[in-house]
Amino acid sequence: MASEADNKAQPPAGSAHFDRLALIGVGLIGSSIARAARRGGLANAIVGCARTEKTRDKAMELGIVDAMYEDPADAVAGADLVIVCSHLGSYATVGKTMAASLMPGAIVTDVGSVKGCVARDLGPHIPEGVHLVPGHPVSGSEKSGPEAGFAELFDGRWWILTPGEEADALAVQRLKAFVQALGSRVEVMTSSRHDLVLAITSHLPHLIAYNIVNTADDMETVTQGEVVKYSAGGFRDFTRIAASDPEFWRDVFLNNREAVLETLGRFTEDLLALQRAIRWGQGDTLLRLFSESRDIRQRIIQAGQDTEAPDFGRRSEPPAEAD
Amino acid sequence: MASEADNKAQPPAGSAHFDRLALIGVGLIGSSIARAARRGGLANAIVGCARTEKTRDKAMELGIVDAMYEDPADAVAGADLVIVCSHLGSYATVGKTMAASLMPGAIVTDVGSVKGCVARDLGPHIPEGVHLVPGHPVSGSEKSGPEAGFAELFDGRWWILTPGEEADALAVQRLKAFVQALGSRVEVMTSSRHDLVLAITSHLPHLIAYNIVNTADDMETVTQGEVVKYSAGGFRDFTRIAASDPEFWRDVFLNNREAVLETLGRFTEDLLALQRAIRWGQGDTLLRLFSESRDIRQRIIQAGQDTEAPDFGRRSEPPAEAD
Repeated sequence: MASEADNKAQPPAGSAHFDRLALIGVGLIGSSIARAARRGGLANAIVGCARTEKTRDKAMELGIVDAMYEDPADAVAGADLVIVCSHLGSYATVGKTMAASLMPGAIVTDVGSVKGCVARDLGPHIPEGVHLVPGHPVSGSEKSGPEAGFAELFDGRWWILTPGEEADALAVQRLKAFVQALGSRVEVMTSSRHDLVLAITSHLPHLIAYNIVNTADDMETVTQGEVVKYSAGGFRDFTRIAASDPEFWRDVFLNNREAVLETLGRFTEDLLALQRAIRWGQGDTLLRLFSESRDIRQRIIQAGQDTEAPDFGRRSEPPAEAD
Repeated sequence: MASEADNKAQPPAGSAHFDRLALIGVGLIGSSIARAARRGGLANAIVGCARTEKTRDKAMELGIVDAMYEDPADAVAGADLVIVCSHLGSYATVGKTMAASLMPGAIVTDVGSVKGCVARDLGPHIPEGVHLVPGHPVSGSEKSGPEAGFAELFDGRWWILTPGEEADALAVQRLKAFVQALGSRVEVMTSSRHDLVLAITSHLPHLIAYNIVNTADDMETVTQGEVVKYSAGGFRDFTRIAASDPEFWRDVFLNNREAVLETLGRFTEDLLALQRAIRWGQGDTLLRLFSESRDIRQRIIQAGQDTEAPDFGRRSEPPAEAD
């Protein structure tokens, strides 16, 4: 393992390579970063940190890290790049625990889905001379845990960086090169803009998915067996979204409250208008609104953010009989 | 082509085989039935009907039918099984047009997503001695058109039949055998129960998907470019659902108004409770509701109605760069 006593030459400005990469948390995102960093040869050593022994053992067994630690302080010692990949709710504790061990000149970033809270929770613990550059890879899966990760998760996806106005330009440049080398495309924006864009593109969709699944579960007149049985009509796609990690999403909604409530208000207004069109049999209104949705779908496919392969029928993976 | 003058022996009660299968409409479902029926050798002749010359030519070119007609009356002449695969809004016209040409003893069914309206719209046009047995294959895709169909669409999926109380038992039995031979599992229920179950498992999810896509489109503070750009965070999965045929869904909502409004009312109540939990920072409530959703997902996978393969990351199909 490289130690902070190593006498290293200053890396070139655009270098995507780091000496010691420390991942605080090795779930879906953390373990995927480890895999992609190894694929690209982006660090001399990759170390991780996890609270439970089970996760630490799993990560070592998968061979995606060189060492695993229980204490964030041990993981970040000597690291020139630290990526916080734990739940948003853990940031203040993680920051406090690792603060004293952060190496001067190190870059600290994160992968959280809300960015406004990073300066609030991690910021106060970042020592002078260490560079905080919050970030967010906009890709994911409903799966979680180290075994769910894969090196291709970021390929062609966006990775948003939200450096504050005071951020060190060289640190931003090096982090940018690193996430590009992981396979991502990079965008830089303010944390408040990020939180609003993500509220509509990610947080609201997840909230709605959770809600519809719970509504279905609660419907007294329809047994659960029937809802599950006929879920191929559209419902199962919501359950796929709603299968994401509950703790992760709790933290997102608690930390992006304002933007989520704003978009939720707009959603409800629009839904009431649709409800009214149904009640009054306004077929033209329904047709117009439904047609507009289709256009957006086409733009997403053109932007390379999804494939055109049919998915409802799950053609490529015919379902097994119930077992 | 077999004619109605042919002197045929009475088929055995459980026979899935028909002499002439007429499909009124050869879109996703109609063309998939044609393919699956051919795969199973379930009819001596398969004929179709489509309003536009383009669709008729396409179906012939694909080789999925033996003949295509413009007039439903010509398609159903001599057919012992007629399947109406056109939009719900066309049923009254289709019924009126084909009524006089229906062969005595023929079975007429449909594949519409709402069942209560079939007796109302098709019923009056079914002559004495012809058997109306409404049906609905609970499977689909966001794609439409004859080229979107595939023979495996029904494999392992449910096909619901909603015969009225007066329905001919032999006709129900034969239709049951036929859809099973297409690959489906069959369930029989009343049309009102069907319409309520589907309202929650299919119609509400589609309505919500359309609505969230439109809300995103309308958000003045977020450009469309950004919504599309960061759609991989969850939003794109809603656009996939909302890419379904707008005319098809207009007809569904106009024809299943009561059940949709009922489930929508419950959905909105639940959503307001979630909104309140976010506003007041009630993390425990959020965690409990999100955890329940995950359980339902597991039951759907266990029931063989979806696969466990991660989909958010679209691992099997890495996206191309924008072109």
